[in-house]
Amino acid sequence: MTPEILRELLTAVQHGTMDIDAALDRLKVLPYEILEDATVDHHRSLRQGFPEVVMGEGKDASQISSIVERIAAVGANVLVTRVDEEKAHRVLVDHPRMEHNPRARTMTFIQREIQIVGRGTILVISAGTSDIPVAEEALVTARMMGNLTEHMYDVGVAGLHRLLGQKEKLMSASALVVVAGMEGALPSVVGGLVARPIIAVPTSVGYGASLQGLAALLGMLNSCAAGVTVVNIDNGFGAGYAASLINRL
Amino acid sequence: MTPEILRELLTAVQHGTMDIDAALDRLKVLPYEILEDATVDHHRSLRQGFPEVVMGEGKDASQISSIVERIAAVGANVLVTRVDEEKAHRVLVDHPRMEHNPRARTMTFIQREIQIVGRGTILVISAGTSDIPVAEEALVTARMMGNLTEHMYDVGVAGLHRLLGQKEKLMSASALVVVAGMEGALPSVVGGLVARPIIAVPTSVGYGASLQGLAALLGMLNSCAAGVTVVNIDNGFGAGYAASLINRL
Amino acid sequence: MTPEILRELLTAVQHGTMDIDAALDRLKVLPYEILEDATVDHHRSLRQGFPEVVMGEGKDASQISSIVERIAAVGANVLVTRVDEEKAHRVLVDHPRMEHNPRARTMTFIQREIQIVGRGTILVISAGTSDIPVAEEALVTARMMGNLTEHMYDVGVAGLHRLLGQKEKLMSASALVVVAGMEGALPSVVGGLVARPIIAVPTSVGYGASLQGLAALLGMLNSCAAGVTVVNIDNGFGAGYAASLINRL
Amino acid sequence: MTPEILRELLTAVQHGTMDIDAALDRLKVLPYEILEDATVDHHRSLRQGFPEVVMGEGKDASQISSIVERIAAVGANVLVTRVDEEKAHRVLVDHPRMEHNPRARTMTFIQREIQIVGRGTILVISAGTSDIPVAEEALVTARMMGNLTEHMYDVGVAGLHRLLGQKEKLMSASALVVVAGMEGALPSVVGGLVARPIIAVPTSVGYGASLQGLAALLGMLNSCAAGVTVVNIDNGFGAGYAASLINRL
Amino acid sequence: MTPEILRELLTAVQHGTMDIDAALDRLKVLPYEILEDATVDHHRSLRQGFPEVVMGEGKDASQISSIVERIAAVGANVLVTRVDEEKAHRVLVDHPRMEHNPRARTMTFIQREIQIVGRGTILVISAGTSDIPVAEEALVTARMMGNLTEHMYDVGVAGLHRLLGQKEKLMSASALVVVAGMEGALPSVVGGLVARPIIAVPTSVGYGASLQGLAALLGMLNSCAAGVTVVNIDNGFGAGYAASLINRL
Amino acid sequence: MTPEILRELLTAVQHGTMDIDAALDRLKVLPYEILEDATVDHHRSLRQGFPEVVMGEGKDASQISSIVERIAAVGANVLVTRVDEEKAHRVLVDHPRMEHNPRARTMTFIQREIQIVGRGTILVISAGTSDIPVAEEALVTARMMGNLTEHMYDVGVAGLHRLLGQKEKLMSASALVVVAGMEGALPSVVGGLVARPIIAVPTSVGYGASLQGLAALLGMLNSCAAGVTVVNIDNGFGAGYAASLINRL
Amino acid sequence: MTPEILRELLTAVQHGTMDIDAALDRLKVLPYEILEDATVDHHRSLRQGFPEVVMGEGKDASQISSIVERIAAVGANVLVTRVDEEKAHRVLVDHPRMEHNPRARTMTFIQREIQIVGRGTILVISAGTSDIPVAEEALVTARMMGNLTEHMYDVGVAGLHRLLGQKEKLMSASALVVVAGMEGALPSVVGGLVARPIIAVPTSVGYGASLQGLAALLGMLNSCAAGVTVVNIDNGFGAGYAASLINRL
Amino acid sequence: MTPEILRELLTAVQHGTMDIDAALDRLKVLPYEILEDATVDHHRSLRQGFPEVVMGEGKDASQISSIVERIAAVGANVLVTRVDEEKAHRVLVDHPRMEHNPRARTMTFIQREIQIVGRGTILVISAGTSDIPVAEEALVTARMMGNLTEHMYDVGVAGLHRLLGQKEKLMSASALVVVAGMEGALPSVVGGLVARPIIAVPTSVGYGASLQGLAALLGMLNSCAAGVTVVNIDNGFGAGYAASLINRL
Repeated sequence: MTPEILRELLTAVQHGTMDIDAALDRLKVLPYEILEDATVDHHRSLRQGFPEVVMGEGKDASQISSIVERIAAVGANVLVTRVDEEKAHRVLVDHPRMEHNPRARTMTFIQREIQIVGRGTILVISAGTSDIPVAEEALVTARMMGNLTEHMYDVGVAGLHRLLGQKEKLMSASALVVVAGMEGALPSVVGGLVARPIIAVPTSVGYGASLQGLAALLGMLNSCAAGVTVVNIDNGFGAGYAASLINRL
Repeated sequence: MTPEILRELLTAVQHGTMDIDAALDRLKVLPYEILEDATVDHHRSLRQGFPEVVMGEGKDASQISSIVERIAAVGANVLVTRVDEEKAHRVLVDHPRMEHNPRARTMTFIQREIQIVGRGTILVISAGTSDIPVAEEALVTARMMGNLTEHMYDVGVAGLHRLLGQKEKLMSASALVVVAGMEGALPSVVGGLVARPIIAVPTSVGYGASLQGLAALLGMLNSCAAGVTVVNIDNGFGAGYAASLINRL
Repeated sequence: MTPEILRELLTAVQHGTMDIDAALDRLKVLPYEILEDATVDHHRSLRQGFPEVVMGEGKDASQISSIVERIAAVGANVLVTRVDEEKAHRVLVDHPRMEHNPRARTMTFIQREIQIVGRGTILVISAGTSDIPVAEEALVTARMMGNLTEHMYDVGVAGLHRLLGQKEKLMSASALVVVAGMEGALPSVVGGLVARPIIAVPTSVGYGASLQGLAALLGMLNSCAAGVTVVNIDNGFGAGYAASLINRL
Repeated sequence: MTPEILRELLTAVQHGTMDIDAALDRLKVLPYEILEDATVDHHRSLRQGFPEVVMGEGKDASQISSIVERIAAVGANVLVTRVDEEKAHRVLVDHPRMEHNPRARTMTFIQREIQIVGRGTILVISAGTSDIPVAEEALVTARMMGNLTEHMYDVGVAGLHRLLGQKEKLMSASALVVVAGMEGALPSVVGGLVARPIIAVPTSVGYGASLQGLAALLGMLNSCAAGVTVVNIDNGFGAGYAASLINRL
Repeated sequence: MTPEILRELLTAVQHGTMDIDAALDRLKVLPYEILEDATVDHHRSLRQGFPEVVMGEGKDASQISSIVERIAAVGANVLVTRVDEEKAHRVLVDHPRMEHNPRARTMTFIQREIQIVGRGTILVISAGTSDIPVAEEALVTARMMGNLTEHMYDVGVAGLHRLLGQKEKLMSASALVVVAGMEGALPSVVGGLVARPIIAVPTSVGYGASLQGLAALLGMLNSCAAGVTVVNIDNGFGAGYAASLINRL
Repeated sequence: MTPEILRELLTAVQHGTMDIDAALDRLKVLPYEILEDATVDHHRSLRQGFPEVVMGEGKDASQISSIVERIAAVGANVLVTRVDEEKAHRVLVDHPRMEHNPRARTMTFIQREIQIVGRGTILVISAGTSDIPVAEEALVTARMMGNLTEHMYDVGVAGLHRLLGQKEKLMSASALVVVAGMEGALPSVVGGLVARPIIAVPTSVGYGASLQGLAALLGMLNSCAAGVTVVNIDNGFGAGYAASLINRL
Repeated sequence: MTPEILRELLTAVQHGTMDIDAALDRLKVLPYEILEDATVDHHRSLRQGFPEVVMGEGKDASQISSIVERIAAVGANVLVTRVDEEKAHRVLVDHPRMEHNPRARTMTFIQREIQIVGRGTILVISAGTSDIPVAEEALVTARMMGNLTEHMYDVGVAGLHRLLGQKEKLMSASALVVVAGMEGALPSVVGGLVARPIIAVPTSVGYGASLQGLAALLGMLNSCAAGVTVVNIDNGFGAGYAASLINRL
Repeated sequence: MTPEILRELLTAVQHGTMDIDAALDRLKVLPYEILEDATVDHHRSLRQGFPEVVMGEGKDASQISSIVERIAAVGANVLVTRVDEEKAHRVLVDHPRMEHNPRARTMTFIQREIQIVGRGTILVISAGTSDIPVAEEALVTARMMGNLTEHMYDVGVAGLHRLLGQKEKLMSASALVVVAGMEGALPSVVGGLVARPIIAVPTSVGYGASLQGLAALLGMLNSCAAGVTVVNIDNGFGAGYAASLINRL
């Protein structure tokens, strides 16, 4: 802890075991270390079984490989998101121990066993079959961050019985990620049924007036069900991450 | 019928009971009469117990009064939409026999008894209390056009049991008008429950990202339930009118 | 009927022919069956000669083939929408009995003869040659759902005589689907001529300020002709489906 | 003409009747005079019977009065646009000779008789009654700029017979201004009937998805009829001005 | 519990203490009770010290008064949001025991002592002075729902030292609500400092390109800090509610 | 002329040389012929040396070839717009006599010598080198429609001297087409220099906040220079066509 | 300077004149002081003759008065922006020494003589008369921050000679603020004439497609003249401030 | 200088060594030369060690090569922006002496040694790794225009310590270019730390609600830090150019 370090330093100066210039050099970098400390608190939590995350989109296979290389060297688990099939296969040549989840478009490198740090279960729900990749990204993220997860796919609002038929699963989750494209109505319906934090993820699934997911995004922001919060379009990772923070409390 | 009129005219010419110039004058206006005939078909249907409609917004009380005056003179029923309280009271001074519905913001002048021309019942559903004025406008329109109507208010998607608790009413309608603001999810849920034509009406109810009803509009256009069609924001009249056309079949 | 089932069950309990645990097991699933019943009403209607529908966009040929396989096994007719030429040819290898309509970008599998369940004729109108694929999608959908259909193509508002020259066809339809891109003005003109339900379909045909069909969509939502309702951009299927619901009344 | 002025100046220098410093002073301002000449060409044309124009919106009555004062002093005709009733009455106190047109929201001060400089007739057409103020602004502008005008109001596309019933008027115009709100379809229909330059004016008439006239604007920009050009929403003045330039050729 | 109720009912039928028609009547409403049960779970949690919430916007003082009347009758606490000064004073005439918080634009009626049900502290942070009303709405909501709260106002990103100077408060919160208008950058900065769930609330504070809060909303949805979720513009209540759900875990 | 035809017909009926049924058959089609006549007026003018126009975008080479085939058969001149290099070369195989202008992306088939029907010269101005294809499309269109043309390229507003250095050309045009992307400011500057009709064409040239030409479009619609009218983004053809209508007066 | 302070502190500890706990207390706040130092650098510069700035919009007269009170107490100059007439008059009652500039909608309190710290002259240019308030806000801001200023109003691009006629003023400025509404073309033209930093300010002047200043904003962001940077719509203060930072270099 | 040239000319006329027609010819082109002089002032500054700039996007390799050829012939330095790898390699075949910077996507041809004309250092900061290409474009531009530069990459607002750890570099810049995508918050944070002109560059980095850089653009325009001005999305060149103009003062 910083206060202890400071006391030691001052005692050393008082006792003459450290001269003033050495103390000065040490102190000069201190403010940033303290700031760093603020952010390191963030990093530390990440390291408590949490993976380092690499956004695969916009990076080629060799860039991904070398980043994974570097992270893996410090012993952390790695989660790569948004890797298409071809890129994944190229990365697998360099890192054959990585696991590739084509539905989630993720690659994971688990060097240290993931410890369950979440108190309850994170439930990921998706409306249509085309929304599944985003839902899976959330699911993989939540698992990599030490959570028990459940999922419930293809339960769109035009077929309510499929959703209501799984009442127990709905009721027993401690945080829910609800993924939907098109009109994005599912989070409102789920939010009317359970009194738990719901993270809504709009997807770019749809055409025409879906405006690449904007319609779903606007729908979710205007949800008539309180307790619904929203992340960016297709941001399964962000939803899984936020749900993990909630579940870790 | 036009062919008959033409045959009479030609016969008159053949028999010399009408001279050529008189026939010519008559024929000159014919094309437009025939076109008129096309549109008159439309007007005729309107007159089969249907009201003449006056959009009250953008007109002052005296303008409304004199239009009503003119229509009433030909014996037609009149429906005035979007009249606020103050304007309505002024119009009532001139037309004390008119009925003012403040919730629907309508005024009606029923000179001829409305005959029921619709085959089934038109059901108007609304999500929140603030959506009721638009729903009522649809309801009044449907009634003025000769339909039996039912309504079901305050059945938003965040409280499904209120909607599902009235299954019979839902199932027995021949056409449904579903009114909702905010995320506009209700038509999708209703569309998943009944296989009847659904006219969705987005409302400008909401704030911020509701964008004055655009979010609800986009949501409804992207509905995952087939059979849903959409009208302009707050257009209760248009929905009631379209439902009447459907029910009249 | 559910009440009968319940009465039988209770009588069996009363008579001791069913023990309480068995009755309990039966009752536990009842609520969802009743809900299911609500939605099954929807499915049932779909099965009355109606096809199962597969959205081909976003699915590859093998995915489509296996879905068709599964549906075909239960004896239903199948309608696949938005299949491009190449995909269609691959699916045809697996399902040589399917019919491919390249203009409509549809594939159909008709196992049971389609019964005409619509009362009148559905008329599909389109403005420009580029709008025809969307119009054809509506037409194929309406036919697969048991309707008599007519069509009238290339009758844009800049050449009114082509539209007005087919007055009889216009007047005799019981529901109309009107397809147009660019400024989307055709539904207003048609809506001024016939007093029938009109479903307007904006298309993404155009460039620049057409904003991928948004201009046409907005135009149709603001139609000055009452009775016009609107579906999503390029949503020929949705329009054909809604017209079928209207015509089935 | 500038070359003559230059020759005179140079001759004066050659002859010694003007010294070099005086010539230099004169030449220094010359380039801007020449530029001015370019723009003066514009002003000159404006003065050939054309009025000076004052945008009344955003100016109070006293500002308008004093601008009119200043222009009137040089003997030009004045056109003030976008003056509401109250403002107009205040300006009339200062300028009782001005004419106020409340429908067009214009005031005009005609000091010199307007000479007809246009070759043909400018026809102003409007779709709905609410579009008339914008149409009248165009009409007044065209008249003030020396044109013969005709108008045709309330001929929306949902009632084609009203438009087609006045074929002669349509065919005989040399330039047309077509004013419409809501879906803005009228210019396309008119453009399909006459082969003359058409200036389309979208109006802010409408609600909801009309987006304060943007829907009509987009519709007109996407017109399927060639020969249609567009001005800003509610810009009756601009349309009347452009039509005058066209008619003056 | 439903199974127990069912067993009792069946036993009564078996034992002949309840006849079949009475059982049938009871069972008929069961499905909806079970559904209700799903939603009641939601309501129940609301009642565990949670208030009933009334959206004051769009309701006049007498409407608010009578709704409060009705809720108060059942003994629940009441939270009214978005009441302006004038409306509040009128409501206070009817309900003098209510507390009016003008900064938060809320009124509260606390009949039962609020029990602390949250595990940690909810920290509400706001960027500018104009954002405070929205922040206060979140704060009041969180308190009414049984949470300990802290706040930190006027710590915009252009003056980082004010934010960083309160590191302890930042680090000790279990959930954070971060309120900002204009560019909406604060949640990203806070999200980089603490590893806790952050609910970002964009406000309509700003002008021009802030587009009534859309700029802040977009900024927050694109936050580069993971763990940030977003609610609608100015939705302080929604943020306070979601933070309460998170903190209650 | 129709009246003459009618008189002949009626005389024939009167004289008994035509029986009533024959007259009736003839009269039945008359209205549409008259309508046709209205539109034929349009077509006729098109044929007075004007080309038939084919939009090449969205059509493949064989479709273009066969349309050209069909038009060419009736002896009309043909203008194909928006043909890329590859498509053009394929069409040239079928129609080696066509002329391909790669800069304008047009193909033309001139069977009948183009007669000059315009009174003055149409001047096409463009701002940047990337705007030239759109400018050339306007130029080719204007020439095919029988106009003398001039052009002035690369005279953007950031280099005014290039524009002002060609004052004579500017001043002598009877109609101007001004093409610009990015901020679209050129029409305003030109409109301040000449008092002639100006048709502004926004182009999709630009990136980021140019929004595919929307920025230029909006700029032009808001031009502070009166007399500027606007066509759709990249619509060189429409501008050339409208300029031709203007010049033909 | 921080290092000196640290050395003193350490020397005091070394010499025993400060005990460790006192040193520790001192060091604990150091990081924030250093951060503060970073931002104070900013504040310091503000105080070098720079005013404290108060945004008057959204604050009532009494709030403004008390803020001015507080700032005035520390002896700083004060600039209040966006104060309307009525508000200004109320503030003047409390602060009669303040100067009110109604055109700029500013109030200033100059306690210490403003020292000229800018190297050259800041020139503020505006396009139309309605743009002057924003231009004046920039001008007042620049003066309050210690700059010599010039202005040039009503020099829109449709009247180039007015701009070009003042070449000397244009050429002699060290930084330019260019204010324009409608199409926002002026900065591009000015940017083509002078090679100095140009800050473009779009204004909300215009109507219809000006979209409350968005058209001008987009135009300026797409300027074809390099060296143009842009601030928010109507942000005269921001432009004056940025110009002052540039001129101070 | 023009006045000298004019005096010589007039003197020659006075002395008879130049006849009037020759003088007239000379004077006729003068206005444009003077205008040219206005713009040449701009060009001249560009030539003071400044490069000629070629926008590589939308031009193919051979077009770039020939433009470079032409510029190089007059001895100027050349900067080509937005050249992808493939294009660059083709251009290098023609111009092997050019330097290709793949990260900045630039090519430069330095024929004359670049002289440092800037007074201080231009610091280019970027938020994420994906923003680096735009940052590099700004950096290369600033260097080519004769400035000392520094850069600081990957200092996003979610990791403040990385930014604050380089306080000296931040404080010592005379102008800053700050590049960021996603929420675009970095310029506000930097603007709160340094009192220097900051040019903010939004990038198209992001997905979904980033709207291709619009979110970042809006964020920057709404920056709560005064002194921030903004250029178009991805416009690294424009930012580097504007920073050079600022630094040259």
